[in-house]
Amino acid sequence: MKCNLEVCFSPALYDLYHHPRSIVVVIDVLRATSAICTAFMNGAQHVIPVGDLEEAKEWKAKGHLVAAERDGLVLDFADFGNSPFNFTPERVQHHDIVYSTTNGTRAIHKAAGADAVAIGSYLNLSALSYWLQKQNKDVVLLCAAWKNKFSLEDALFAGALSKKLLDSGLFTTICDSVHAALDLWSSAQPDIYKYIMKAAQKQRLAKNGLDDVIEFCHTPDQTTIVPVLKGDRLIGETVGKICYL
Amino acid sequence: MKCNLEVCFSPALYDLYHHPRSIVVVIDVLRATSAICTAFMNGAQHVIPVGDLEEAKEWKAKGHLVAAERDGLVLDFADFGNSPFNFTPERVQHHDIVYSTTNGTRAIHKAAGADAVAIGSYLNLSALSYWLQKQNKDVVLLCAAWKNKFSLEDALFAGALSKKLLDSGLFTTICDSVHAALDLWSSAQPDIYKYIMKAAQKQRLAKNGLDDVIEFCHTPDQTTIVPVLKGDRLIGETVGKICYL
Repeated sequence: MKCNLEVCFSPALYDLYHHPRSIVVVIDVLRATSAICTAFMNGAQHVIPVGDLEEAKEWKAKGHLVAAERDGLVLDFADFGNSPFNFTPERVQHHDIVYSTTNGTRAIHKAAGADAVAIGSYLNLSALSYWLQKQNKDVVLLCAAWKNKFSLEDALFAGALSKKLLDSGLFTTICDSVHAALDLWSSAQPDIYKYIMKAAQKQRLAKNGLDDVIEFCHTPDQTTIVPVLKGDRLIGETVGKICYL
Repeated sequence: MKCNLEVCFSPALYDLYHHPRSIVVVIDVLRATSAICTAFMNGAQHVIPVGDLEEAKEWKAKGHLVAAERDGLVLDFADFGNSPFNFTPERVQHHDIVYSTTNGTRAIHKAAGADAVAIGSYLNLSALSYWLQKQNKDVVLLCAAWKNKFSLEDALFAGALSKKLLDSGLFTTICDSVHAALDLWSSAQPDIYKYIMKAAQKQRLAKNGLDDVIEFCHTPDQTTIVPVLKGDRLIGETVGKICYL
């Protein structure tokens, strides 16, 4: 029997999609889930998602590396912010990174009651698709959105991943959000980078001079690591032999 | 200065879009807002949206005509259900219709704190667009959705109306949901009827043999009446001389 695929466009709607036996993929392309994938790609040991800033400060006081931002800006007590470019091998290798962002880490906590929570971005798109196909479970793609409002870049990625999953023949859907995400993904061809220029998040990042990451965050298949939530932290599961066709 | 346009994909997200000076257009293409437009087109005096079934029963006991459904099926105490085909001139002319549905009437109540609440469907698409252009107010297009989950047919209509409003030059947007709705509308060309076949609501209606209304509900410009909420009831505002170009 095929597994069921759904897309949830906002964490505020997640309760409607929650099922304890489903796997949730958290998507925050600009920039949290791209940054998390980059951290693992560059050798981080764990990423500890923290919603609350007080908790992030406590981790910092205990000597941990802390990445924390609100509305795109680095918080003063943090070691660095939310740009994937901050998560360099020199900084993150063999380290645990405590990480708090406006939308991404909150979405991860929202999904914590699911069977499993994985982190999705273009950087691990094919690896994630492969990993999901091996699980034999229903899947919900949870867009982190912007303060619970629908965001185009997350919906677009949900479309990219939905296409791979449905094309595998292992998944089926009766979810209108999946159809919408697929059609947006189709509309964005052949140039997703150009397409995403109209996203509100592109404007927000540009306002603070932070839009240099957009092209990188839309580059597929830079890593074979799928970050997965285990207890209070994300670990990196490396997907074995995969073939990007 | 141009007015701001936003689309809200679910009543559960409406608080994020609410502004007391904005006009809200409630959209429930299959079938509540199409049925309401049909009622006015066929001579109804008022439509009284009622969320609660007990309240609908009280109106019925007082001798009013009551249209009420849940999950697409007519409730036993009601005079008729949610199909626009029920709202015939013989039944509705000069009458007040009390109306309760799964999603549509709830969305109307959700929006009641806005500057004005109007009812949108393909049946009054051009008239509604014209009416909104005359108001000089920000506009939120509120999709009634399905039990708060994103619904394709409502998003598609939001795209159709957004296109008209933005093309008028009187509106602007920085809302990702508007861009998504516009792209879905574009994807659905040239055959929106064919496109909508994949919507979950089409399957739900077909299951109960109620999908005969889909083509009618996607037929533009059958009426020049814009239903608008005044107190506890909708009245029909007839838009004057309009030219469908």
